[in-house]
Amino acid sequence: MDIKMGVAKAGIKPSGDYDILVLRFKPSVYSLYLTQNSLPAAPVVYDRQLREKVEKISGIVVNSGNANAATGEDGLKDAKEMAELTENCLSLKENSVFVFSTGVIGVRLPMDKVRKGIKEACSNLQPLDLKLASRSISTTDSFEKYTSLQFSIDGKKGQVVGISKGAGMIHPSMATMLAYIFTDVQIDKPLLDKVSKEVVEKTFNSIDVDGCESTNDSVLIVATGEGEIKITEENIEEFKGYLYKVALQLAKMIVKDGEGATKLIQIDVFQAESPQEAKEVGEAIALSNLFKTAMFGNDPNWGRILSAVGQLHKDIDFSKVKLYIGDFLIYDGKPTNYDRERAVEYLKNNSEVVVKLYLSRGDASWSYYTCDLTYKYVEINAEYTT
Amino acid sequence: MDIKMGVAKAGIKPSGDYDILVLRFKPSVYSLYLTQNSLPAAPVVYDRQLREKVEKISGIVVNSGNANAATGEDGLKDAKEMAELTENCLSLKENSVFVFSTGVIGVRLPMDKVRKGIKEACSNLQPLDLKLASRSISTTDSFEKYTSLQFSIDGKKGQVVGISKGAGMIHPSMATMLAYIFTDVQIDKPLLDKVSKEVVEKTFNSIDVDGCESTNDSVLIVATGEGEIKITEENIEEFKGYLYKVALQLAKMIVKDGEGATKLIQIDVFQAESPQEAKEVGEAIALSNLFKTAMFGNDPNWGRILSAVGQLHKDIDFSKVKLYIGDFLIYDGKPTNYDRERAVEYLKNNSEVVVKLYLSRGDASWSYYTCDLTYKYVEINAEYTT
Repeated sequence: MDIKMGVAKAGIKPSGDYDILVLRFKPSVYSLYLTQNSLPAAPVVYDRQLREKVEKISGIVVNSGNANAATGEDGLKDAKEMAELTENCLSLKENSVFVFSTGVIGVRLPMDKVRKGIKEACSNLQPLDLKLASRSISTTDSFEKYTSLQFSIDGKKGQVVGISKGAGMIHPSMATMLAYIFTDVQIDKPLLDKVSKEVVEKTFNSIDVDGCESTNDSVLIVATGEGEIKITEENIEEFKGYLYKVALQLAKMIVKDGEGATKLIQIDVFQAESPQEAKEVGEAIALSNLFKTAMFGNDPNWGRILSAVGQLHKDIDFSKVKLYIGDFLIYDGKPTNYDRERAVEYLKNNSEVVVKLYLSRGDASWSYYTCDLTYKYVEINAEYTT
Repeated sequence: MDIKMGVAKAGIKPSGDYDILVLRFKPSVYSLYLTQNSLPAAPVVYDRQLREKVEKISGIVVNSGNANAATGEDGLKDAKEMAELTENCLSLKENSVFVFSTGVIGVRLPMDKVRKGIKEACSNLQPLDLKLASRSISTTDSFEKYTSLQFSIDGKKGQVVGISKGAGMIHPSMATMLAYIFTDVQIDKPLLDKVSKEVVEKTFNSIDVDGCESTNDSVLIVATGEGEIKITEENIEEFKGYLYKVALQLAKMIVKDGEGATKLIQIDVFQAESPQEAKEVGEAIALSNLFKTAMFGNDPNWGRILSAVGQLHKDIDFSKVKLYIGDFLIYDGKPTNYDRERAVEYLKNNSEVVVKLYLSRGDASWSYYTCDLTYKYVEINAEYTT
């Protein structure tokens, strides 16, 4: 794929690191998912309007270090200016660039710095470097998040690449996460929208760090059509599998880098009445601070898992429920005599752990991803702006 | 009021402190509110059944150190035995005693110790000592929670006294909290139920520590009728005010003692469309880990407050919203130039702080109470059973 990028150190981030990213690519169909928070950031408002107008885009501009959220009319003007300036600097036509921001809420963008940064980034284009692109959009992230996948369908080659950022305020309906995925397949927008929606629901909308939904979350999926593969109803499932793989990797990286997290926790819910119910149950567990602190303490405290499920007030028959932590059957309609010491060891020795819950109500399932709640989370968030 | 109590150190609590409480009083009308968690503890199941059967009760038995939750049929048998043993030992008639448990989930009660403890407590009755009673039902609590109020209506004297416990797993629909309130007024059960429901909704159901609802929460309000005052439709509002005062004090003590908390935070929501909306908004803020950690860090991070409200996905017009932290107007449709240093000082120097939000949508209001999220919370809950 011919994707060009430019980055700049505009001085928006206190750290002084890269904080402006522009990407330019051929006019491409896209699917864009934005936060549902009713206090959306200015760039989200701008992008929502643009999404209604255009079928194809040719670029994006992202700043990190400032969310441009709760900044009123001024903020909206700034977002618009960022998009238009990028279009100008990259010689792209009107209404072809989405704009994204991430960082502190409620502070007006330092537009002098932003303008200078965008101009600099646009005048130093280079081939897409996933790692550097990820670095330029990060805030409290502790590592770069990117991945790429090459695949073939019917002997033809295709690829999917992506970057993401996010470490706190991560919660379904997508909280301060940004993710950009590019694929070279040829695909119509309606088909891309359909497949993306399913994939986003199972990945970026099934992760949690702290239950807090952000004002800025955005996932953009772009199909440039430069590759050999044409996606149709016949091979869509195969393509979906590849897109899912990349999206899940990027989403899991966000959780793994959850502020202060020491563990990625995968919650698999089985035998629910519906996928929606399975997801709700997984989410209820993921949101429990008591569960998350127990995981930090390597404590197989299953009572906190079941009471989190009970908090949904569903008529679940707990005498039929089975709960596993790793391979340990901890609860089988009642507490079991599992080997507690070995279960503690399992939690201690693994940075990725699995909790499996069988509800005995149907045949739907869902996987939800979260992380533990640690001293470090408190430290990061008690001292973020002070 | 002639309320007799007995306590014992049965050895259920690892600390070896008092862990059995029995109370005996004359047959009295009551109102009982139990957790809505669909994984209710055995005593909750027992009490629910008893509540359907009897208009009056004469005693309670409480053990701390073990919740008797998720213990199946065996647990239910144990709860029943506790109630019946207490009835026997106190020479009370059948079906006159409610039973309550609080502590670790999923471990069967050590019934030998419990039996011995109940017998000992029943054979050493003394006048109600609120402080000692509170101590005997506490788990992770760091101080005793009790209060009493004397009042008069139309020249006649009345009183309300109460104890409570709870420090974690505190959340609406009442999470591991126990509260017992006694009044000497004469009142019919339907009237007591009506007034209690309103009071509980605005007190014990409007507090949060960690968003986690417990399997054991119970609030019992008993009217012994030994006093001079007869409550009727005419003076019910006056009585409600006194009952509310006691209930609110007990509820706030629970939040103040929230696990690891350094601050009690009162969230007043004004100008909502309905009381329910006002409550939802207050709760959304109270549940935000980002808000709670910011309060711990004495950080007037209003973006986290507004984005928590935005997470409700209501069509709130944030350009009309006003937000105060203490007396500082922090947001007035847009960020204000408030004196940040002084606002930080306000948060630093007060163990009880107030956040006020004006929604500009109607005239309903609600107060919600929560605490900050601290290192200590993580420590307590990461190491609770290990």
